[in-house]
Amino acid sequence: MTDYSNTIQQHLDRIAKHARDLFGNGHVADYIPALAKVDPNQFGIAVCDLQGNVYQAGDTTTAFSIQSISKLFTLIQALQIYDEELWQRIGREPSGQRFNSLMQLEVEQGIPRNPFINAGALAVCDRLESRCSAPNYQLLELLRELSQNPHLLVNTTVARSELEHGSRNAAMSYLMKSYHNFDNPVEKVLESYAHHCAIEMNCIDLARAALLLCNKGKTLAGREILTQTQSKRVNALLATCGLYDAAGDFAYRVGLPGKSGVGGGIVAIYPGHYSICVWSPELNDAGNSLIGTYALEALTDALGLSVY
Amino acid sequence: MTDYSNTIQQHLDRIAKHARDLFGNGHVADYIPALAKVDPNQFGIAVCDLQGNVYQAGDTTTAFSIQSISKLFTLIQALQIYDEELWQRIGREPSGQRFNSLMQLEVEQGIPRNPFINAGALAVCDRLESRCSAPNYQLLELLRELSQNPHLLVNTTVARSELEHGSRNAAMSYLMKSYHNFDNPVEKVLESYAHHCAIEMNCIDLARAALLLCNKGKTLAGREILTQTQSKRVNALLATCGLYDAAGDFAYRVGLPGKSGVGGGIVAIYPGHYSICVWSPELNDAGNSLIGTYALEALTDALGLSVY
Amino acid sequence: MTDYSNTIQQHLDRIAKHARDLFGNGHVADYIPALAKVDPNQFGIAVCDLQGNVYQAGDTTTAFSIQSISKLFTLIQALQIYDEELWQRIGREPSGQRFNSLMQLEVEQGIPRNPFINAGALAVCDRLESRCSAPNYQLLELLRELSQNPHLLVNTTVARSELEHGSRNAAMSYLMKSYHNFDNPVEKVLESYAHHCAIEMNCIDLARAALLLCNKGKTLAGREILTQTQSKRVNALLATCGLYDAAGDFAYRVGLPGKSGVGGGIVAIYPGHYSICVWSPELNDAGNSLIGTYALEALTDALGLSVY
Amino acid sequence: MTDYSNTIQQHLDRIAKHARDLFGNGHVADYIPALAKVDPNQFGIAVCDLQGNVYQAGDTTTAFSIQSISKLFTLIQALQIYDEELWQRIGREPSGQRFNSLMQLEVEQGIPRNPFINAGALAVCDRLESRCSAPNYQLLELLRELSQNPHLLVNTTVARSELEHGSRNAAMSYLMKSYHNFDNPVEKVLESYAHHCAIEMNCIDLARAALLLCNKGKTLAGREILTQTQSKRVNALLATCGLYDAAGDFAYRVGLPGKSGVGGGIVAIYPGHYSICVWSPELNDAGNSLIGTYALEALTDALGLSVY
Repeated sequence: MTDYSNTIQQHLDRIAKHARDLFGNGHVADYIPALAKVDPNQFGIAVCDLQGNVYQAGDTTTAFSIQSISKLFTLIQALQIYDEELWQRIGREPSGQRFNSLMQLEVEQGIPRNPFINAGALAVCDRLESRCSAPNYQLLELLRELSQNPHLLVNTTVARSELEHGSRNAAMSYLMKSYHNFDNPVEKVLESYAHHCAIEMNCIDLARAALLLCNKGKTLAGREILTQTQSKRVNALLATCGLYDAAGDFAYRVGLPGKSGVGGGIVAIYPGHYSICVWSPELNDAGNSLIGTYALEALTDALGLSVY
Repeated sequence: MTDYSNTIQQHLDRIAKHARDLFGNGHVADYIPALAKVDPNQFGIAVCDLQGNVYQAGDTTTAFSIQSISKLFTLIQALQIYDEELWQRIGREPSGQRFNSLMQLEVEQGIPRNPFINAGALAVCDRLESRCSAPNYQLLELLRELSQNPHLLVNTTVARSELEHGSRNAAMSYLMKSYHNFDNPVEKVLESYAHHCAIEMNCIDLARAALLLCNKGKTLAGREILTQTQSKRVNALLATCGLYDAAGDFAYRVGLPGKSGVGGGIVAIYPGHYSICVWSPELNDAGNSLIGTYALEALTDALGLSVY
Repeated sequence: MTDYSNTIQQHLDRIAKHARDLFGNGHVADYIPALAKVDPNQFGIAVCDLQGNVYQAGDTTTAFSIQSISKLFTLIQALQIYDEELWQRIGREPSGQRFNSLMQLEVEQGIPRNPFINAGALAVCDRLESRCSAPNYQLLELLRELSQNPHLLVNTTVARSELEHGSRNAAMSYLMKSYHNFDNPVEKVLESYAHHCAIEMNCIDLARAALLLCNKGKTLAGREILTQTQSKRVNALLATCGLYDAAGDFAYRVGLPGKSGVGGGIVAIYPGHYSICVWSPELNDAGNSLIGTYALEALTDALGLSVY
Repeated sequence: MTDYSNTIQQHLDRIAKHARDLFGNGHVADYIPALAKVDPNQFGIAVCDLQGNVYQAGDTTTAFSIQSISKLFTLIQALQIYDEELWQRIGREPSGQRFNSLMQLEVEQGIPRNPFINAGALAVCDRLESRCSAPNYQLLELLRELSQNPHLLVNTTVARSELEHGSRNAAMSYLMKSYHNFDNPVEKVLESYAHHCAIEMNCIDLARAALLLCNKGKTLAGREILTQTQSKRVNALLATCGLYDAAGDFAYRVGLPGKSGVGGGIVAIYPGHYSICVWSPELNDAGNSLIGTYALEALTDALGLSVY
């Protein structure tokens, strides 16, 4: 195992080095000022294994806005509460549309295609709002536990800014409400949602937080967050729907279940072995980290990590 | 290994027995007479491993119309010829639409979303037509080699009937032609396509034919049909796009890359270990074998076969 | 003229008589309780000419909810303020979609197709909100003047109920806001809009109010509400877009510019001669008054009133 | 009347003079070579009245490709044969989509929205094919009679070229066939359609040919081509659907029923008074003659000809 660990570390170092050559080919998310002013020339990668080892290279201790990666953890929260009942409100199919499209939501009469497009994540938040006393606080507590980092915080400037630029999310929420698939006040759910997106974590935090999906739903400490079946199924959802409308390309090139965010982070899962978090703020046309996708492709190719 | 083999066989027997209790809950494909008159009360399942063992239960020696499962093999043929160049003409994303929708093809200006929806498979056939002297014959030869069954045949009654009911496929082909993404005469390609769909194979034939995708692209005899990378990528495409607009649900419930056909067959791949073919003619609303899907879910649950 | 007036009256009497035979073939709008409990078995028709005569038959003095007919008058208000500048925010084409579709609004990036679909009327209200101190009050005052009925009122129960069931309208407004085509607070505009829809008028009130469109934009008292060109153009918009997705059928069968509302009212214009208001609460599948459409077809056939 | 005639002539002369100042602002249709090489700097306008007078200015004796204006006359042919029965196969609503969109045709299951979009005209041709022994010849004969020009011909180079570039029309036809809304062989109907589009007429020919729609369906010689009701209804269809997805704008600016073609011709009807044909090859973004639309707007403004 030692040798293999050395191999991982060597690959990470090589990839991090090469990543810096790729700076300048994408564009940082700019729909809110707080994201637009992030330094684009950053890259970090962290890998956790089931023995508790963490391999890392680059800017792995810089916290960034987790944005849509939060959708993975609100889904986990909702599955803990609703399990299969959740799917009465939300689909499980790839959307074939941009992450914030209303078109499909109208055609399918207010049932979002999956929990990882914006409409689906808003529906998940609505479900949490119905059963949790303090869903925002509880998500943060969960993430603190999973990442073993009690200092995780919400960037309230980002959260406020998200809310101010949240008209499309409001439109989607009201459209779901018009189809009776949204029970709580829209404003309240939008506020929760904005807080989730504005949580800041670094690569190590996120790789650690996702490790339960490599471990049949359990933390390394042995606490069952999800059942083994739930864990497998979340990975299946990530594989088919986790990268917006680039899930097929990601499966083709990287071959792992994953979830991306416009903050430039991507979490990927190699079930039974590794959780990975890569981060670099510049995005490609599909809205996923340009260099992050490259790095995952390079790492999985080098180590033969595909699930397929 | 012996014990484990016994376990597989026991599960297959149990599943085949239970499958018969489920007869009568779906509907046989009826868009052409030759398919409509198939006896719905049939079920077969076959599993191949890399040691050359075949486990089976039920009607595994009855040949059926492979229909869209042929799309997997024409893709393999096309990758052998074009490799990555193929993707200049065809996408790699789930469609989020029915298998024969023209809408998306129009929005995306004649580039089909993936090779497993009808438009994509027609584009693949067009590519084969451009480079193969006798694409139909070559597909049949490939399938005979892979299945180790030299007696495979096209059901010409079905092929003719497909052609007569092929107006939608003609519409898609002409739409692609209008976007300069279709080079050969439409009639010729439609005829090839109809022949592919009308090939008849049984569960054992198909499980054997798909085994290369468990074996890094090679036959058990050691012939490289695809490179290891190509094999992995075909599995990724199957996982995200192989079951039409039910790929998410199939990943969620079964957890394996797979390809279905309206003849009631489904092929599934557990990379590195098993290829599976299940067949039962009654379909669910998504157009996939109702009992076949159940059987795969039961088998993968029992053996813990998910890739996720 | 006397003879011809007699003819009109005779036709109205005949049509009103026959209308009662048709009761029971449609369905009253039921999306809000206040509309659902309207007695369906009512019918009224009123015709105004430029000499100040009013011909009428049936329930012409019963006030009803004008609903979307208000869109005609808010458009008139907005043209008074913005004239051609209004079209920077709103299109002038038939939509080919249901009145409350979001799909097209997304495809056309927040520019509603015309001022008579819901999104367009909301955009008009947003424009009024930007420039009027009290848009609701001013609309009511305008309608009181035009109808010569100082007693017109808003039914506040209906208005409140509209607001409570206004999620789709909220969704459309937020979607426009996300495309920077909506300047005022959504809640405020929705409240105005709900009040407009809840104004109650009878057939005579509405026929009188619309008479300016027969009179080159002027009231019979000679006040210019719209210029002659504006008046002609509003009629053109009514002809192509006034009946939601049944404008073609209405032109085909009735042959006049018109505007309908789900309260069962329809206003029609025979430029240079007559304004007509017909009312009957039962709707056809397109959401227009079933018997109202019949009555207009019968009247225009009998008198040869088509503009075509 | 003499004075008024002088007025018309003066307006035409003025408009034709000004039209030449506008050359160079649009683009000639270039999807087939035969159209692409037409000299763009041409303009003609002709007006016919019910007394048999013809007013004209500019290039009124140069024949051009009538293209989609043929759709008006094939509709007239079909109404002569099928009358109201025609509408079982074709809708009567504006489409809200481009003239050759397949999307809507799929959503509405093979029923084209109206007879003036390509799919609708193809459905009309299919209807003619079912009942006419020689539909192409009969259309040409009808146009020769109506235009009083026995020398009208099909440009066979254009017709052949249309056919070669007709993949989208083939796609639409096959899509309708898949919904059982197309009875004849696609190739045969496409050939007829291409011939219709390739008929060549000049402004005077076309103004004369359309005069029946100003005259309650009759030729000036008194032959009834359509009933009065049919004539009125064709005008209604032209008003709501005649200019593709710019019907609203045309009604707004010109205020007359009309039909355009990509050859640069536009026919407009002022019922009871005038038929107008204007021609100039440069098109605007909506595919209608740029200067032709301007000229009609100028003429109808000057003479106050709007139906609204």
